[in-house]
Amino acid sequence: EIVQYLKNSAPGPALPDLSGKTILITAGPTQEALDPVRYLSNHSSGKMGYALAQVAAQANAKVILVSGPTNLGVAPGITKIPVTSAAQMLSEVMQQVQQCDIFIATAAVADYRPATVADNKIKKKDDELTLTFVKNPDILKQVANLPTPPFTVGFAAESQNVEHYARSKLNLKKLDMIAANNIATAGLGFNSDHNALHVIWRDGEHHLPPQPKVQLAAELLSLVATQFNKKTSN
Amino acid sequence: EIVQYLKNSAPGPALPDLSGKTILITAGPTQEALDPVRYLSNHSSGKMGYALAQVAAQANAKVILVSGPTNLGVAPGITKIPVTSAAQMLSEVMQQVQQCDIFIATAAVADYRPATVADNKIKKKDDELTLTFVKNPDILKQVANLPTPPFTVGFAAESQNVEHYARSKLNLKKLDMIAANNIATAGLGFNSDHNALHVIWRDGEHHLPPQPKVQLAAELLSLVATQFNKKTSN
Repeated sequence: EIVQYLKNSAPGPALPDLSGKTILITAGPTQEALDPVRYLSNHSSGKMGYALAQVAAQANAKVILVSGPTNLGVAPGITKIPVTSAAQMLSEVMQQVQQCDIFIATAAVADYRPATVADNKIKKKDDELTLTFVKNPDILKQVANLPTPPFTVGFAAESQNVEHYARSKLNLKKLDMIAANNIATAGLGFNSDHNALHVIWRDGEHHLPPQPKVQLAAELLSLVATQFNKKTSN
Repeated sequence: EIVQYLKNSAPGPALPDLSGKTILITAGPTQEALDPVRYLSNHSSGKMGYALAQVAAQANAKVILVSGPTNLGVAPGITKIPVTSAAQMLSEVMQQVQQCDIFIATAAVADYRPATVADNKIKKKDDELTLTFVKNPDILKQVANLPTPPFTVGFAAESQNVEHYARSKLNLKKLDMIAANNIATAGLGFNSDHNALHVIWRDGEHHLPPQPKVQLAAELLSLVATQFNKKTSN
């Protein structure tokens, strides 16, 4: 599906040349099991991460895509590592990240997982059910706080106070860049083919207007490449 | 996808003639929102319900399919009503059921939904999160307990004590028939193209062995038609 979707999209800006660079991208939702049949998840389609993987490959980067469950396929040349839960995503990311120059975390990782996973299907008995959830590992923060981290880009999907949350996420997690969007805007973001991003880094910012996610991915990748080159040439 | 999938499957037993009958089928999972992005769901693919809808249409029945989110399409002639939550599914079923002769509930309706749905994305703060869930309406039971119910068929997907749970569900909910399967059997059931069913009614039972879901649907529909004819000719 994504291949066709990309073929139908006109390329946006000229892509940067990322020859010799390795980019690690996470995409999609995670699913957190409650029992063998039930899970907690979210409406991330994975389209933004798959679009970034595609334009990064077109920019000659080596691309590794660690993806939660989606309906999307990847073009040849992109290494896709499928995962289900946040714990699995963390494990795969940590195995790959040391060889990577740039890490872009588009995945909508579940913030919490059930404290316990039942081996058998939970039977419904009571009128109310109280479940305890524990925090999932913060993959983005763990990568950004490695001794020698890659250039690390986070995403912030918020329904209110978008810029405030994005800037505090940038600072608290020690990211190099964050791409924020307002999920309350009709027709954009989750499950849509379009999005708009407010891209923020330590000493700058840029608004990318509403557009197809593949074009948006190309524009974002250009910003990433420019700031990555600045950082690594210092 | 389902159309191709059905074309590739050889028909099983001769189909009953259900001309002039209306069959209402529910299929797929339901999604229960926690906030604008997060939801609780389950691994039901909807394949069994869509296969039943297809063979029922081939058996000349008028078919109404009330379906939770799936990746499946329906053949022309089947009326598909898409829904997301259990509450929506109940509402649509109750609007359709009075004109129906047979009701087959294959949907994996979420037993519980979050007690409250947040208008905005829940921010992660605490190390632990405790959520309260309340019981969803029991669509199957509500239909079976109508003053003039259709011939009502339930499904029981269990990971242990399968027959025990199925028989108590048949009796407690006053169903006409129940089709039970063991989701702990590798390669069968949820998300698989194959399944096996233990079909139980008040004065009989039948084991349908592991086979493609379309063939299984045809065999189940034959059992349904036979028992429906017995009941309505009394």
